[in-house]
Amino acid sequence: MAFQQKVIEIQLPDWMDTFINRYPSNISSIEDRMSFVIEASKINVSNGAGGPFAAAIFESDSGKLVSLGVNLVISEGLSFLHAELVAFALAQKKVGAYDLGGENLPAHELVSSTEPCAMCLGAIVWSGVRRVITGANDYDARKIGFDEGPKIIDWRSELEKRGISVICDVKQQEAAKVLLDYFLQGGKIYNARESGEN
Amino acid sequence: MAFQQKVIEIQLPDWMDTFINRYPSNISSIEDRMSFVIEASKINVSNGAGGPFAAAIFESDSGKLVSLGVNLVISEGLSFLHAELVAFALAQKKVGAYDLGGENLPAHELVSSTEPCAMCLGAIVWSGVRRVITGANDYDARKIGFDEGPKIIDWRSELEKRGISVICDVKQQEAAKVLLDYFLQGGKIYNARESGEN
Repeated sequence: MAFQQKVIEIQLPDWMDTFINRYPSNISSIEDRMSFVIEASKINVSNGAGGPFAAAIFESDSGKLVSLGVNLVISEGLSFLHAELVAFALAQKKVGAYDLGGENLPAHELVSSTEPCAMCLGAIVWSGVRRVITGANDYDARKIGFDEGPKIIDWRSELEKRGISVICDVKQQEAAKVLLDYFLQGGKIYNARESGEN
Repeated sequence: MAFQQKVIEIQLPDWMDTFINRYPSNISSIEDRMSFVIEASKINVSNGAGGPFAAAIFESDSGKLVSLGVNLVISEGLSFLHAELVAFALAQKKVGAYDLGGENLPAHELVSSTEPCAMCLGAIVWSGVRRVITGANDYDARKIGFDEGPKIIDWRSELEKRGISVICDVKQQEAAKVLLDYFLQGGKIYNARESGEN
């Protein structure tokens, strides 16, 4: 008998393609890119796949959408399936490169409904994106009980040092409202130490 | 036409099951657990799937092997497929829980051939492991050109604060030799900013 699986399969929710098709293929302003991502985070909650988080990869200049990820921790049973990692995987598979910042590729950016946690911060660096745009902030996430993990306080400078520009608080109130609504509806707050802090 | 994939598939290398079957199902000492992981990191290099890194999940008390992960960044084309994340995914799928530290589960630990990078440090917290054991250290990884990312300097305390104990430098010289050999053989150092620092 095989000791462990030879293939790890990650299923994306069925609604995503239909949702994406409602939008133009290119979204020009960063506010509109964020609205798209915030809408997806809301649907992820009603769909029950995971936390109230969504993230997308765009080509920065053209605004062409490359991928949309949502948090799949609960539906797929994997702790690292934060929206950002799902978006990176889909974009890297589509582009055919594990480095979205490679030569001969247009500059890519991550648009995320909430600031990155400690893990996603590290993953941003490996992904090759050149810009990060966030909606709700650390405080908004922590307020409803999500731990952001062992994250460097001045994380923006750490990214900027590595040539990745950062724009925070884009449609922050709208994004924060999705988090709060999730909490008020009794949504699961799934930190690692479930039996402890929560 | 579908906008993006509905399933992300991650293929594990063929040699893993045969390799695992050469070992007993339970490995009692942490040194022997590390030797197992270091051997896997060597095979990953000759197999060409990714960097010279391997990581395994064990039940801490019994030493029962739960999963073995290796770095698959190159073969699978995904930047976040570090050995630790692959090991977490396989263990969480096997156990049927995204929190390896959940109630009714034995305590799990991560044994990794090299200290965690910034991303894996965050992922450790979400995984639910209660103990982390590392071989080669940060310095050994950086010496051959691997960037560890925006990682908190006192990362051990950050884990310990969260109830995760840490044992470093287990068979460090043996583990560091695998990194050095990889470098001397001209192995690919695949940081995000390929066109920049490397």
